[in-house]
Amino acid sequence: MKIMLRALCAPLALSTALAASLAAATPPPPVDPVTEAKSDIWAWNIVEGLTTEVGPRPAGTEAEARARKWAVDWLTSHGFKNVREESFLIPTWVRGEEKAWAISPFKQPLAITALGNSGSTGDAGLEGDVAYFADYAALEAAAPEAVKGKIAFVDHVMQPTQDGSSYGMAGPIRRAGPNLAAKKGAIGIIIRSLGTDWHRNPHTGNTTFDAGVTPIPAGALSNPDADNLVRMWKRAWVMAAKPSDGMSHVPTPLRVKLLLTPRDMGMQPSGNVIAELPGSDPSLPPILIACHLDSWDLGTGAIDDAAGCGIITAAALQAVRGGNARTIRLLWAGAEEVGVFGGRAYAEKHAATPHAIALESDFGAGPVWRMDLALGAADKGLGDRLAAALRPFGISRGPAKAGGGADIGDIAKAQKLAIIDLQQDGRHYFDLHHTPDDTLDKIDPTELRQNVAVWTAVLRVLARETGTIAPSD
Amino acid sequence: MKIMLRALCAPLALSTALAASLAAATPPPPVDPVTEAKSDIWAWNIVEGLTTEVGPRPAGTEAEARARKWAVDWLTSHGFKNVREESFLIPTWVRGEEKAWAISPFKQPLAITALGNSGSTGDAGLEGDVAYFADYAALEAAAPEAVKGKIAFVDHVMQPTQDGSSYGMAGPIRRAGPNLAAKKGAIGIIIRSLGTDWHRNPHTGNTTFDAGVTPIPAGALSNPDADNLVRMWKRAWVMAAKPSDGMSHVPTPLRVKLLLTPRDMGMQPSGNVIAELPGSDPSLPPILIACHLDSWDLGTGAIDDAAGCGIITAAALQAVRGGNARTIRLLWAGAEEVGVFGGRAYAEKHAATPHAIALESDFGAGPVWRMDLALGAADKGLGDRLAAALRPFGISRGPAKAGGGADIGDIAKAQKLAIIDLQQDGRHYFDLHHTPDDTLDKIDPTELRQNVAVWTAVLRVLARETGTIAPSD
Repeated sequence: MKIMLRALCAPLALSTALAASLAAATPPPPVDPVTEAKSDIWAWNIVEGLTTEVGPRPAGTEAEARARKWAVDWLTSHGFKNVREESFLIPTWVRGEEKAWAISPFKQPLAITALGNSGSTGDAGLEGDVAYFADYAALEAAAPEAVKGKIAFVDHVMQPTQDGSSYGMAGPIRRAGPNLAAKKGAIGIIIRSLGTDWHRNPHTGNTTFDAGVTPIPAGALSNPDADNLVRMWKRAWVMAAKPSDGMSHVPTPLRVKLLLTPRDMGMQPSGNVIAELPGSDPSLPPILIACHLDSWDLGTGAIDDAAGCGIITAAALQAVRGGNARTIRLLWAGAEEVGVFGGRAYAEKHAATPHAIALESDFGAGPVWRMDLALGAADKGLGDRLAAALRPFGISRGPAKAGGGADIGDIAKAQKLAIIDLQQDGRHYFDLHHTPDDTLDKIDPTELRQNVAVWTAVLRVLARETGTIAPSD
Repeated sequence: MKIMLRALCAPLALSTALAASLAAATPPPPVDPVTEAKSDIWAWNIVEGLTTEVGPRPAGTEAEARARKWAVDWLTSHGFKNVREESFLIPTWVRGEEKAWAISPFKQPLAITALGNSGSTGDAGLEGDVAYFADYAALEAAAPEAVKGKIAFVDHVMQPTQDGSSYGMAGPIRRAGPNLAAKKGAIGIIIRSLGTDWHRNPHTGNTTFDAGVTPIPAGALSNPDADNLVRMWKRAWVMAAKPSDGMSHVPTPLRVKLLLTPRDMGMQPSGNVIAELPGSDPSLPPILIACHLDSWDLGTGAIDDAAGCGIITAAALQAVRGGNARTIRLLWAGAEEVGVFGGRAYAEKHAATPHAIALESDFGAGPVWRMDLALGAADKGLGDRLAAALRPFGISRGPAKAGGGADIGDIAKAQKLAIIDLQQDGRHYFDLHHTPDDTLDKIDPTELRQNVAVWTAVLRVLARETGTIAPSD
């Protein structure tokens, strides 16, 4: 305040002369967007804002609608153009009570969470004997009589992996296990969380039942609870109960009780938020960059996926400093977690708009360690320029063909788009993924900025690319 | 089975000759209890058994009664003598629903747990404006009008410390904060958990209200939730609401809703479990070693305090190999967490029995790093022998006078007992303490065994000490 008053009180002539002399002596240094991005504040601002002012953003709920409003306000006030919501309807499932207990021969509570689309146990809960399966293959191989009338418990081993490949390996247990167990006559299913942590915060996530299969109650136990249930199951197994012939081993059944009361809310509104930084040449097809705005309800959606929205948005702002020939279009997608409804709605609505290339950020805020490309053969020069832009970060070009992400999947497939994957380090991602622990404090600001700087370097190359970007081969 | 049959079928003469020749060639090596203790299996067996077969053991509940039965069975079947329960009654409080939400100007759920002896909000819950206090001193200094009719939120900073001293520093917030807030007219209180972790598992623990003060609802938020509430409070503060004179800043109130429905169950049975390894000289007063059997309800009581029971019990079994002059008496105390009722009951019941010395293990399973002593001046020789016994572990004798633990406190005070504290590394203890995360997987078997070996070394010196162990000066 003091400084401002002094400036106001200074004689105008002197002030002007001073300014002129300063300008002559020290011309402003040229802005290097990548250098600027290394001290970016916008990505953190978005992640902190969304997690503090909105919190969890479950698809199809009023919280997701509040998040869209928040997004439109933020993007508009930070210079984005053509900011708008594009609405669609989705089938909406909401969580109720969720509790579980071992009840016999040992008795104690278990930390559980319902999987998305789980059936309800009703308010009275559901009791049953546990049928243990070491993994999805064991459940697949089981005769129906080993499952029928039981509560299936599907175990597995999940390693932390840098590329997240262990999630692909374990994924069917959550996505398809409940449907398979229901078809074999199980009355309920509990799975070991798809997670690599040792905290009593189970990991939720979507499951789906085939048409005609009645959803059974389906929950995930935290890793410590799954361990405990395995120990109980082994101890119950050696506690022989009523050996009928004096020879056979008849193990004591391990019984559990589930109380899961989720509800289907029918079709509810969801939507995408779109925004653009228009390029100087409107004839060039835009670069599409995507994240998702919805989150699971247990945490605050910091790593999944406020971080992605922060990264792509901050990088777009940084990359256009000094000008961009090509438009950068942002898709903050709705309803990704429950079936990629936003990505599908975008692809349908914008089928007639040609796009140049698509990128997505939806794997937390771990540092980018590799770039995978899916470019046409004609784009070798572009690929080399991108590789050169990431060399200062120590990021190599990977051998795999980029696969894209969920929300750009439909449009990329429909238009055979070129794709770039900026692979993030996922070794700690599945410690937090879909749990209450997905909160702001888990994000390292330095790692978040590395993402912004890497994305800025890539977007800067793309936004200045005036030649044709060929579809992926 | 095969081997046994062969042995039975072998000619007796050959077998006897073989045995004699083997005995001559390889006399059994002398057993060194401390070396044996380094590969101890009993401590783990106790911790795994209690956490798997019983689980949480809240004081005054049927689960604590099941734990006493489990303890008597284990101790009896492992060679302890005079194993018995000693019952007493305690006022019993049990947890109900526990939820919280920020409701205005931001709206999202908060992870909360009720403190022991918290009042109830009733099923309808309780809404109020937040009054922020940076720590206990700020709440103490506050004028009643800053608290009256509000929900007090008491923040603080807690560092991980090897000696656990930060718990002493933060402790009054939980133990005395609710009583103080109630006396100043608060309608409820939420505190930042007394914990050093960043998971959304809040830390419970006991609080007490003065006679005549009606208990208000009192809960602890997890660290990530406390952070989030602080951010909301700061953002609400800068959102000026209706400045009445165009000059003053009238911040938007931050409102929260609490739903905490614990109940008082009146007087319920609790009890101690006592067991002994009798010494060869019954005239020598016994060594008292203690842990507590009850636990908070949220976790499975692995580090607090199944580990302590495992450590003292395994060490007692190891230490008497080769003989003990002095009796080792175990106290697995009941109802420690809710007011050290077991320790008090023990001291009353055994007031007429002289004891030699008392030790307690109730600080998890981190390795012992220092020994503190409270011995009489006449026991300098004993102190030196104890220090020599721990030198091979790299454990030094600390400068502080041993203070003992909660459960030996009353008897030690009444009889001015000599005390030994085997200080454990507590840097991670308050990551888990009183949370759902207090589970078996958090215990490192190697660190648990270090405790057993150190305790064995100490108990071995004490159990063979036939001279008088003088009361502490």
